[in-house]
Amino acid sequence: MPELRKDPITGRWVIISTDRSKRPSDFSRESVRIHGTGFCPFCYGNEDRTPPEVDARRENGGPRNSPGWTTRVVPNKFPALGIEGALDRQGEGVFDKMNGIGAHEVIIETPEHHLTLARLPEKQLEEVLGVYRDRMLDLKRDRRFKYILIFKNHGEAAGASLEHSHSQLIALPIVPKRVQEEVDNSKTYWLHKERCIFCDIVRQELESGLRVITENEDFVAVAPYAPRFPFETWLLPKQHGSAFENCPSRMYGGLAAMLKNILLRLDVVLEMPAYNYVIHTSPVGEETNDHYHWHIEMMPKLTRVAGFEWGTGFYINPTPPEESAQFLREAVI
Amino acid sequence: MPELRKDPITGRWVIISTDRSKRPSDFSRESVRIHGTGFCPFCYGNEDRTPPEVDARRENGGPRNSPGWTTRVVPNKFPALGIEGALDRQGEGVFDKMNGIGAHEVIIETPEHHLTLARLPEKQLEEVLGVYRDRMLDLKRDRRFKYILIFKNHGEAAGASLEHSHSQLIALPIVPKRVQEEVDNSKTYWLHKERCIFCDIVRQELESGLRVITENEDFVAVAPYAPRFPFETWLLPKQHGSAFENCPSRMYGGLAAMLKNILLRLDVVLEMPAYNYVIHTSPVGEETNDHYHWHIEMMPKLTRVAGFEWGTGFYINPTPPEESAQFLREAVI
Repeated sequence: MPELRKDPITGRWVIISTDRSKRPSDFSRESVRIHGTGFCPFCYGNEDRTPPEVDARRENGGPRNSPGWTTRVVPNKFPALGIEGALDRQGEGVFDKMNGIGAHEVIIETPEHHLTLARLPEKQLEEVLGVYRDRMLDLKRDRRFKYILIFKNHGEAAGASLEHSHSQLIALPIVPKRVQEEVDNSKTYWLHKERCIFCDIVRQELESGLRVITENEDFVAVAPYAPRFPFETWLLPKQHGSAFENCPSRMYGGLAAMLKNILLRLDVVLEMPAYNYVIHTSPVGEETNDHYHWHIEMMPKLTRVAGFEWGTGFYINPTPPEESAQFLREAVI
Repeated sequence: MPELRKDPITGRWVIISTDRSKRPSDFSRESVRIHGTGFCPFCYGNEDRTPPEVDARRENGGPRNSPGWTTRVVPNKFPALGIEGALDRQGEGVFDKMNGIGAHEVIIETPEHHLTLARLPEKQLEEVLGVYRDRMLDLKRDRRFKYILIFKNHGEAAGASLEHSHSQLIALPIVPKRVQEEVDNSKTYWLHKERCIFCDIVRQELESGLRVITENEDFVAVAPYAPRFPFETWLLPKQHGSAFENCPSRMYGGLAAMLKNILLRLDVVLEMPAYNYVIHTSPVGEETNDHYHWHIEMMPKLTRVAGFEWGTGFYINPTPPEESAQFLREAVI
């Protein structure tokens, strides 16, 4: 008998198939391979083929927009939003719009074209997380922005158009709907219980262990109770914290280790899948609160989305999270 | 300058790119072709290869589960939900679940393997809509069900696993989140204005004409103001009505004509794209109300979903609806 499960944070019900449960080998996935052929604007020597860098780390110094960097941040060459101008909200009869002010940046995670994020040395991953943090802190000073969204598309199937390892940042003048819902629902829970719902989940998951993939001092990786997608994985800080960018510095090392660990497990179990991850953090100006708990949601791209999901917000997941957690937990990395 | 637009029904903001606006030929799409090779369980003579039919129309009579039908409804061979049993809601600490009670049916739209829905005679399409209606009315008598979801996946890219033209029905013991949001937000609007928000939108769209694709006596097809996807198209009844299955009978003919018209336009402009559509109608037991207005949402499958959309409920659409409406409006069918 399949099960309907409710995500306690969003209130969304999903169907978890148990009868026709799918194992990793049941998905007809395409492994992501780095071909490294052809011109790449993210490689050393091509710094002038991207818009001028907004940030870069160079251990041995050196001029801007030249080789020698270890991580580099550039504006997206085809930005979804424009950085110049004042916000201008307007009505159009029953409709509402505003001009598309925002920042759209690319974080180049390594100069090495052939390395995926999973294969980066832990120290380099920690640097990437530090760059995320610094860009967030910098952009938050711009009072037009209400939310800084950091995400990664890995592999063509997950929407990546360039194979050289990179993440993206979008600074938005609004809070995305799903994030606002999470914040609102967490707040409602807090008002009822005076406890953070994520803290409650972390505690329950660690006690049962059923859906835990791995943990370290500061973080735990779980398959969420009501996942939309097979092998969906969340990384959560064990201690309450509302904003990714406000973590104590020592925690980014632990997060880098956890992220690498999980990416390697996904690579082993799902044979180098395409994936997306998104950092869920508090909106700008609400960084310190008792109800919201920042985390990272990772979604390997294994299934074609059957389409009605778009229209209904209703999902059918062929792999119970207890099974995906077990596969990932037992992976030899 | 791109634009941020808010969907007045869901409250979701989307980015509409105007600078890098994509025309139909810019999408690297795969046309859906019917190959017709190999065994098909939905063709005449193979009626015993599906679960026994729950409904079928046979002009000249004939026994059940034999050829001669014009439309046929069978349980899904791999159902996402099980039809037997009582609802059993349970807590699991902070989580909630229930057993997966529901119906999952397949509506075979024609015996002709090589016909797509767009190519069906209008009369046959009207019969399909009548079957949708009858199945909804039948399943609504089962008080375990709170929502009847009807949707179609056309083409492999849109999640169809069999090419013989068919739709699906899922009867659910819960109301899907997106539908509940629509209903709730429409109700809030009604409480403020004592007008249906969809009626307001229909009126405004018909007046401006900017996003209207085509209309007939009872229906209008528009590109919505804040579409998530390029060439997203909604079919709306002009007069207020809350439930698809409670339309006056004469309206299904007009809807069939409109549906065929739009599918043909999509086929011309986007070269036979894969697509999904979903009927959005009121939850069971709330069929007659002033605030919700049933409609059909159609989404051609043109872009890879960049993944962060899943995590955030935030969309970037490279084609303004005014442009997609114009392409579809001017299509010669």
